[in-house]
Amino acid sequence: MSEVRVDGARLWDSLMVLAEIGATPGGGSGRLALTDLDRQARDLFVGWCAAAGCHVRVDRMGNIFARRNGTEPGLPPVMTGSHLDTQPLGGRFDGVYGVLAGLEVMHALNDAGVATRAPLDVVVWTDEEGARFKAGFMGSGVFAGLQDLDAALANPDGEGRTMGAELERIGYAGDAPLGMPVAAFIETHIEQGPLLEAEGKAVGVVLGAQGQRCFRVTVTGAEGHAGTLPMDHRRDALLGAARMIDAVNAVAFRHRPRPVITVGRLDVRPNSPNTVPGQVVFTIDSRHPDDDTLVSVAADMRSACEAVAGAAGLDLAMEQTSERGSVAFDAGLVAELRAAADKLGLAQRDIYSGAGHDACNLAGIAPSAMIFVPCEGGISHNEAEYAKPEDLAAGCDLLLQVMVARAGATG
Amino acid sequence: MSEVRVDGARLWDSLMVLAEIGATPGGGSGRLALTDLDRQARDLFVGWCAAAGCHVRVDRMGNIFARRNGTEPGLPPVMTGSHLDTQPLGGRFDGVYGVLAGLEVMHALNDAGVATRAPLDVVVWTDEEGARFKAGFMGSGVFAGLQDLDAALANPDGEGRTMGAELERIGYAGDAPLGMPVAAFIETHIEQGPLLEAEGKAVGVVLGAQGQRCFRVTVTGAEGHAGTLPMDHRRDALLGAARMIDAVNAVAFRHRPRPVITVGRLDVRPNSPNTVPGQVVFTIDSRHPDDDTLVSVAADMRSACEAVAGAAGLDLAMEQTSERGSVAFDAGLVAELRAAADKLGLAQRDIYSGAGHDACNLAGIAPSAMIFVPCEGGISHNEAEYAKPEDLAAGCDLLLQVMVARAGATG
Repeated sequence: MSEVRVDGARLWDSLMVLAEIGATPGGGSGRLALTDLDRQARDLFVGWCAAAGCHVRVDRMGNIFARRNGTEPGLPPVMTGSHLDTQPLGGRFDGVYGVLAGLEVMHALNDAGVATRAPLDVVVWTDEEGARFKAGFMGSGVFAGLQDLDAALANPDGEGRTMGAELERIGYAGDAPLGMPVAAFIETHIEQGPLLEAEGKAVGVVLGAQGQRCFRVTVTGAEGHAGTLPMDHRRDALLGAARMIDAVNAVAFRHRPRPVITVGRLDVRPNSPNTVPGQVVFTIDSRHPDDDTLVSVAADMRSACEAVAGAAGLDLAMEQTSERGSVAFDAGLVAELRAAADKLGLAQRDIYSGAGHDACNLAGIAPSAMIFVPCEGGISHNEAEYAKPEDLAAGCDLLLQVMVARAGATG
Repeated sequence: MSEVRVDGARLWDSLMVLAEIGATPGGGSGRLALTDLDRQARDLFVGWCAAAGCHVRVDRMGNIFARRNGTEPGLPPVMTGSHLDTQPLGGRFDGVYGVLAGLEVMHALNDAGVATRAPLDVVVWTDEEGARFKAGFMGSGVFAGLQDLDAALANPDGEGRTMGAELERIGYAGDAPLGMPVAAFIETHIEQGPLLEAEGKAVGVVLGAQGQRCFRVTVTGAEGHAGTLPMDHRRDALLGAARMIDAVNAVAFRHRPRPVITVGRLDVRPNSPNTVPGQVVFTIDSRHPDDDTLVSVAADMRSACEAVAGAAGLDLAMEQTSERGSVAFDAGLVAELRAAADKLGLAQRDIYSGAGHDACNLAGIAPSAMIFVPCEGGISHNEAEYAKPEDLAAGCDLLLQVMVARAGATG
């Protein structure tokens, strides 16, 4: 069993063929959820699965389950998968790799004549990206009982078409029961960050996903004439905000392991070259694997901003706008992934996911984990997204080993 | 002569009556240049001047000259005045005070039976604000030979109507010769800044107007995912811009006398809460009474920004977008204003103008100076603009003394 390897070329070819559906001029893919392009990609995948001898079912959320039967049909499946929808100008690997790596596992096991005790499922989760309808992670969210089915189906796109109606239209409103026992869920994905590439690692064993707290900070001073208001009479909201941005950034470097803290959006009022800014509103996005650390990071950021505001005579309002708890993946699966990577001779490191993934939803109902592979320059959600064939194959080999181990080889 | 005083109540009443033309809900005035409201204000002023025995002429730029004759008609006039147009939501004093203070001088001299050797002119300069047509300071600019008449008349507003056509339409395209010898020009104005009020001064003797250099700074880093890009892998353009804003502000405190430096506008790309900013563009407005200092301030700001960019691995482009030289008012007039203020017992201080005024244009062709009076909270270009009747009267008394001294009293 441990000698079975996936066919990296076949995996690569399948990725390149699927990427042609919604191919963008810049070399990426644009397949918004539940569009005709999404249907084409789903149809292609379903066809490939059927050709690989899998039994395909679709649930009411449009989640596609392609099953390779086990020798003991009553056992819950060992599951892998991800999503086929993309950002409007997305890449060829985000999501798609996790789906087609699962399919490649089926092919490789077929070629090697390996049977497993438990069935193996490859899943396409509906609308992970959230780029068309109001929210993302809907398919896995409903499956895991985190989202209400009717509410999800009522979700409108920008033109008022609901997710439910669009599922019917593209023929993916199925009748398979929603939710089922899952023995384990393991998702492969490109890292979408720079660490594996920078450190020359073949795979990352994902320990969990960072928690996230977002804030809106409003700094209020007083507008003034750029020519007539002396420097020491000013209450310059932008100068204050600038010092807060520097101070908030410094907070990141005072915690270990280091959180990520981002001021990504900033709006100035009145934003006129010859007026001292009267008000600035900016956002803070903070993420860390440990929720308690995130609470103390928030407190430090608030103190830092208050100190700047106090010294500059500015008014400050800092309100939390969203919060998402961290996710810890299954310790047993993580240990198995590390050991299997060693056996395969793959350079590995532990890593946290900075972004959300379907596996984070599954973690609530089944032992779950993820495998990251390097992507060039950490670039993702971008037409330029790229991953090397050998890295994709390595991650897929690791997936195969752990799925089979969990399902129990009979050969 | 030195006992003659203006009638503060009459001056105040005239300001309040004129403010009703284009009165705004917030207690200010909105009279864009060469609109029907501007015509009504001009008509009212011309009527008042005629009633005061003045002879009124209008030139092709619509500048109105109301003359109180001297005993020696061949002498060039001693001139005062300002403008009657306002910002869309402007105040009741900006410009109007300078015009009606001149008229009050005429009234007070009439009441006291004082004759002068040289004639006294009160001028309404056309379109100082630049809030409707493409550029401001047009009337005084053409009069002083700094602007071409035909180019000025061809200036369009947002709807394509030219200044020349609008002057014809409202009946203020006159035929008085453009430009004439001027013995002296003294303009009274609210400070539009906080210093006189803060220091309890009745009047400010204006030494000149600051020079101004404006810049556009482009900071380029690299976009990244707020969740997956570790802090030490980032090239965050907004973090860099924030440090530059702080550094540029610090430059102001390293020069004496202190310049004013303002970052008033800042735009972030892509300005998304969960993306590390890839590019930031911001403006710098720097002003100082001494042009050489302004050059060295610019060099210091450039060094400061380069140091930040270098340390953070960011690309920097800093280009000068505009430049206006400083103006020094006539030393003799300044000395006379200081001495006269002392004689009147007015608490005074020297001051620089941070904004441009018609007197800056006149300074090129005649000995010129300005008198500032306090305005509440330094607020201007705003409906809330306010000045106290007693301060307005004090500035007007000072104007009277110096105009009569320059014109030569015969009484």
